[in-house]
Amino acid sequence: MDFSSFLTSLGTSFVIFVVLMLLFAWLSAKPVNNVVYYPNRILRGMDPFEGGYKTRNPFSWIREALSSTEQDVIHMSGVDTAVYFVFLTTVLGILVLSGLILLPVLLPVSVTDNGVKFNATASTSNGTFNQLDKLSMGNIKAGSPRLWAYLIATYWVSFVTLYLLWKAYKHVSRLRSQALMSPEVRPEQFAIIVRDIPGVPQGQTRKEQVDSYFKAIYPDTFYRSLVVTDNKQVNKIWEELEGYKKKLARAEAIHAQSKTIGNPEGTRPTHRTGFLGLIGKKVDSIEYLKGKIDNTLPKLESEQKVTVREKQQNAAIVFFTNRVAASSAAQSLHAQMVDKWTVMDAPEPRQLIWTNLRIRYFEREVRQYVVYAVVAVTVLFYMIPITFVSAFTTLKNLVKILPFIKPIVRIHVLKTVLEAYLPQIALLIFLALLPSFLYFLSKLEGIPTQSHAVRATSGKYFYFTVLNVFIGVTIGGTLFGTFKEIESEPNQIVALLASSLPDNATFFLTFVALRFFVGYGLELSRIVPLIIYHLKRKYACKSEVELKEAWFPGDLAYGTRIPGDMLIVTIVLCYAVIAPLIIPFGVLYFGLAWLVLRNQALKVYVPSYESYGRMWPHMHNRILASLLLYQVTMFGYFGVQKFIYTPLLIPLPIISLVFGFVCAKKFYPAFHRPALEVSAHHLKEVPNMELIFRAFVPPSLSYDKSDDDQFEDALSQISRTTSFA
Amino acid sequence: MDFSSFLTSLGTSFVIFVVLMLLFAWLSAKPVNNVVYYPNRILRGMDPFEGGYKTRNPFSWIREALSSTEQDVIHMSGVDTAVYFVFLTTVLGILVLSGLILLPVLLPVSVTDNGVKFNATASTSNGTFNQLDKLSMGNIKAGSPRLWAYLIATYWVSFVTLYLLWKAYKHVSRLRSQALMSPEVRPEQFAIIVRDIPGVPQGQTRKEQVDSYFKAIYPDTFYRSLVVTDNKQVNKIWEELEGYKKKLARAEAIHAQSKTIGNPEGTRPTHRTGFLGLIGKKVDSIEYLKGKIDNTLPKLESEQKVTVREKQQNAAIVFFTNRVAASSAAQSLHAQMVDKWTVMDAPEPRQLIWTNLRIRYFEREVRQYVVYAVVAVTVLFYMIPITFVSAFTTLKNLVKILPFIKPIVRIHVLKTVLEAYLPQIALLIFLALLPSFLYFLSKLEGIPTQSHAVRATSGKYFYFTVLNVFIGVTIGGTLFGTFKEIESEPNQIVALLASSLPDNATFFLTFVALRFFVGYGLELSRIVPLIIYHLKRKYACKSEVELKEAWFPGDLAYGTRIPGDMLIVTIVLCYAVIAPLIIPFGVLYFGLAWLVLRNQALKVYVPSYESYGRMWPHMHNRILASLLLYQVTMFGYFGVQKFIYTPLLIPLPIISLVFGFVCAKKFYPAFHRPALEVSAHHLKEVPNMELIFRAFVPPSLSYDKSDDDQFEDALSQISRTTSFA
Repeated sequence: MDFSSFLTSLGTSFVIFVVLMLLFAWLSAKPVNNVVYYPNRILRGMDPFEGGYKTRNPFSWIREALSSTEQDVIHMSGVDTAVYFVFLTTVLGILVLSGLILLPVLLPVSVTDNGVKFNATASTSNGTFNQLDKLSMGNIKAGSPRLWAYLIATYWVSFVTLYLLWKAYKHVSRLRSQALMSPEVRPEQFAIIVRDIPGVPQGQTRKEQVDSYFKAIYPDTFYRSLVVTDNKQVNKIWEELEGYKKKLARAEAIHAQSKTIGNPEGTRPTHRTGFLGLIGKKVDSIEYLKGKIDNTLPKLESEQKVTVREKQQNAAIVFFTNRVAASSAAQSLHAQMVDKWTVMDAPEPRQLIWTNLRIRYFEREVRQYVVYAVVAVTVLFYMIPITFVSAFTTLKNLVKILPFIKPIVRIHVLKTVLEAYLPQIALLIFLALLPSFLYFLSKLEGIPTQSHAVRATSGKYFYFTVLNVFIGVTIGGTLFGTFKEIESEPNQIVALLASSLPDNATFFLTFVALRFFVGYGLELSRIVPLIIYHLKRKYACKSEVELKEAWFPGDLAYGTRIPGDMLIVTIVLCYAVIAPLIIPFGVLYFGLAWLVLRNQALKVYVPSYESYGRMWPHMHNRILASLLLYQVTMFGYFGVQKFIYTPLLIPLPIISLVFGFVCAKKFYPAFHRPALEVSAHHLKEVPNMELIFRAFVPPSLSYDKSDDDQFEDALSQISRTTSFA
Repeated sequence: MDFSSFLTSLGTSFVIFVVLMLLFAWLSAKPVNNVVYYPNRILRGMDPFEGGYKTRNPFSWIREALSSTEQDVIHMSGVDTAVYFVFLTTVLGILVLSGLILLPVLLPVSVTDNGVKFNATASTSNGTFNQLDKLSMGNIKAGSPRLWAYLIATYWVSFVTLYLLWKAYKHVSRLRSQALMSPEVRPEQFAIIVRDIPGVPQGQTRKEQVDSYFKAIYPDTFYRSLVVTDNKQVNKIWEELEGYKKKLARAEAIHAQSKTIGNPEGTRPTHRTGFLGLIGKKVDSIEYLKGKIDNTLPKLESEQKVTVREKQQNAAIVFFTNRVAASSAAQSLHAQMVDKWTVMDAPEPRQLIWTNLRIRYFEREVRQYVVYAVVAVTVLFYMIPITFVSAFTTLKNLVKILPFIKPIVRIHVLKTVLEAYLPQIALLIFLALLPSFLYFLSKLEGIPTQSHAVRATSGKYFYFTVLNVFIGVTIGGTLFGTFKEIESEPNQIVALLASSLPDNATFFLTFVALRFFVGYGLELSRIVPLIIYHLKRKYACKSEVELKEAWFPGDLAYGTRIPGDMLIVTIVLCYAVIAPLIIPFGVLYFGLAWLVLRNQALKVYVPSYESYGRMWPHMHNRILASLLLYQVTMFGYFGVQKFIYTPLLIPLPIISLVFGFVCAKKFYPAFHRPALEVSAHHLKEVPNMELIFRAFVPPSLSYDKSDDDQFEDALSQISRTTSFA
């Protein structure tokens, strides 16, 4: 890729971004779009333009984002979102601090050297050498003492990263503990999940078994238990009922709308009962649906009874009367045989994956390994197409294989644009396909909470992204360019990989640019949700509920954002010293990300769960992994540059590993298990245990019942304390 | 080694054993030796000849040992000893069940084949081929279908091992939980150890800090705390005092003995106060020592006060009013920063290593890795001499290097004996030097309990033993025999190793024989302790205390026994299929071990601590490691025999690894952490918390004090519950 196509790519992306930002400024000022641009505020009952920024200034959102504090973010969007901003800030900090030293020092060093003309290793990348490469480390003569500057830069970037990671981990740890020690009563802090309950003994019900077991161990703090049931059937009926209700509301809305002055009674909506409302008997919708609801209610009630009595499973949620007892119980070993009575801390009720609770201990292990194998196969399978894509990076290659596109390529502008975007677009499409498949796989593992499944998905996606995109493209490009060399010297793959890095650097630079300008432009302007909302509002939605569904924004989905961000981090870190010009692009990307997402977090997205920052250790480890990859790459690259002091880099990966080990020992356990000193903090009020208990009863079971006999027996004191002989 | 020297070795060993057993029968019948042969019974206040076996039948001890139950062992010698017997029984079971199939099937198969004459691989071991080798797998023609029998035998041994290991782990797990749920009040079940306490906040004492911290988390179950102090000085003074007391008792005993009829007043003993009692002023010993004691007592008391007030360290023992609270606290995370307020379950007071309690979290980690490195160096350093020893195995080699011993070797009997014993004796001396060094290293790691240090020592010793003795001797023998072959084909070390196994098998056979006959003969007859006791009694001991010290037997020291046993297990397992004749020797070894040690456990040794079977997971893993080594060896050996179905063995190590993984998941955590359902069992009586607390106060601090003001303040209620912001 030559310099002009790079500039074209950059320019086009920037223009798109400016257009999208202006669109945003214009659209977000219209009150009719408030539900698209301020849904989070609206749902919290706040004024969309709160905070004094009621001006129509198109850049006021920037001022708002910049002046918001971490506490604002926690308040509006939860600890998880705040932690995501810690991630952004940390990466931004790393890049800014690195750039402040690297850019003024390394660029002059490389631009004043022109060793590359005599440099044998650089000649393998014939044709791609251009003005940009003059600013990179590849322009330095092999073995030149100028490489000392790069060596020191390598150390500088490493230490900056480690220092900021340490600070960030400490900060997140404090955020988490502050959130967990909050005086608010949170149901999940009073409950634990018990799985792998052994078979019910003769003469006891499952509930009695669970109650007597925990009553014996916690005579003072045990409150009651909720046995997990197979809710498939009852959920189905409940959803049916909810469906009817929604349709009824819609029918009533249609009816109300039809009440014009000329027709004060309105037209009662009708539909056919058959397939898709197209065939069958024509009925009055309102009457018909009311009848359906009346029929379904008793069905639901009887199914609820059957579920609670007969569909009990080998898992339960156990409630304690104080937080310390629950925290302590959640991390203690209960049974001598570890695959019985396993415990864990309860998540928020809304993120429980009920169907996974019954899966047995060793089955979970087996599932996990099977899923890992499937993911590994997926990663390897995707490797092949991505490698091809990267080989087609240059239109020249494309023309070789598909000669009929030659005429198109002759048009200069088109050629430039194609060269700039072809591979990136292919990459983006690939990456968009994957997350939901990986989430499905993660749930198959038997993970019992949504946030954990999201973390697992994010991890898989990260491995996929880095392996396929970064290593795949680099190796692929190298392989196609220098296949013969590798054939003759298979042991030199690492050296070849390193020597082909500068060529790939410009490719990745355009990739990053495309991503941040177009991606965050779309994110900020919310063009797609806006269009969908207006279409739905006009043609589909009738009732209030339907309207709300149409504009409900969902959550920030940081689970899929992070792997993408991590890819950028990895790319920028790896090229930071080799081609320091990439750093400003990285800074721009993460600066823009911070700004746009801050706006979205405060005004748009509604968190769908809260895991109190449990994502952080994963982000931390992945930044550290990128750092390691960077250090190894630098080691290889210095080797290619025939710098005899290259072994001086060996301590770096060792330091990183020790750092990771120390962090894992010092900080990680408090993310995995609740620390007692945190739970021991005082509550604002005496917790209402009944409410806490109700919070965990699934809606399909608690529906339309003020008090249900099913749970009565749990309250009756179990006088004898059972022994376990 | 030829067949006759093997028989000589076996015969000599057996004669020694018979002589030692007869000596035991004769000596143990004499009442004057009771304290040597029945010290455990005497210390428990039992009649040495309890149980009806008062006959002078020299073999009644065998009947007693065989008829004793596991409960007897637990009662007399604790769970740890019982678990050691589970280990012996399991290994015995594995060998017996293997032998029952392997001996009748494999011996005829190999003896009726004489492929070895045409077998190229066997010819490398020229000169060592003999009658014994005719019974081994080496006698089978390469690629012969007879190898199927050996393949099936390999599977049989593996499955027998896995089955018995599973049963044993279950059994030990039950033993442990039964011991832990006992209704007896055991102080360690009410306490936890807290380390890494952060700096004392302004205006608080260490004790207040600890108390307020735990009071806030456990308002109902916290009893009091005991801050760990630096007891070096006070221990020194206390030992001084104890020394004076002992000397006083001795002086008084001498005085009393001197009171004959002719001299009713007796002679008052005197000594000189200078160096070793040889120079200086002559004084009346009794008066002098009484004066010394009177001087030391106030010194001790003032030092006790100083220690308790000013030498508090960053660790404490915290007591709870019930077992569940302590168990739960011992395994819960307390602080958000994990390197603060780390907890663990308290061991028995007697096995606390006080000086290690103050070592900080990361210092412990660093120490651990440093010690591992030292051990690794030790293992590698010892490798060299052992390799040489093994090369000298044959006198022929010795004569080559030391030609002047040729005349000695000409004497036939001497030559045979030398050939039989030379290498074994060298090995035994090497192995005897090591355990105390390894125990010292383990304590350096910062391990806070004696039993844990013993386990760590045992592990190091195991690695040392197996690596040096087994692999070292085998590879060494192979290297010296076939050095040139390896030089030409360095990749074939595994194949060479496997092909040299049968030659080494006979060497190890004599090693095992020597070990069991001579070793257990000495163990049973207790010749050395007997002689030492009688010498001391006659010439050194005067007072009762001194006498008791002279016969006090110490504990079973299974920590150093197990690595030795494991070496035998590894050897026998590895050769079980290759040379099945080794199995009866293994059975004999472990049968004898069981019998002799059962006698010693019931009558002689006094356990010095109780860890409730925490050694078992280590034994389990090591047997499993031996099994893996066996499976890999067999894979190599079948390859050497050019058996095309060798890949059928690949599932075996995988099955073993999965088995180990399942056991580690299912059983191990209950050995590492106390299971709550176990601690929740009822106690016989309401625990006397004061006594529990006192049990942990070191003798040097509790000495001569009925109540000490130091602990008073702990009992005063801390009214405010501190918060941790």
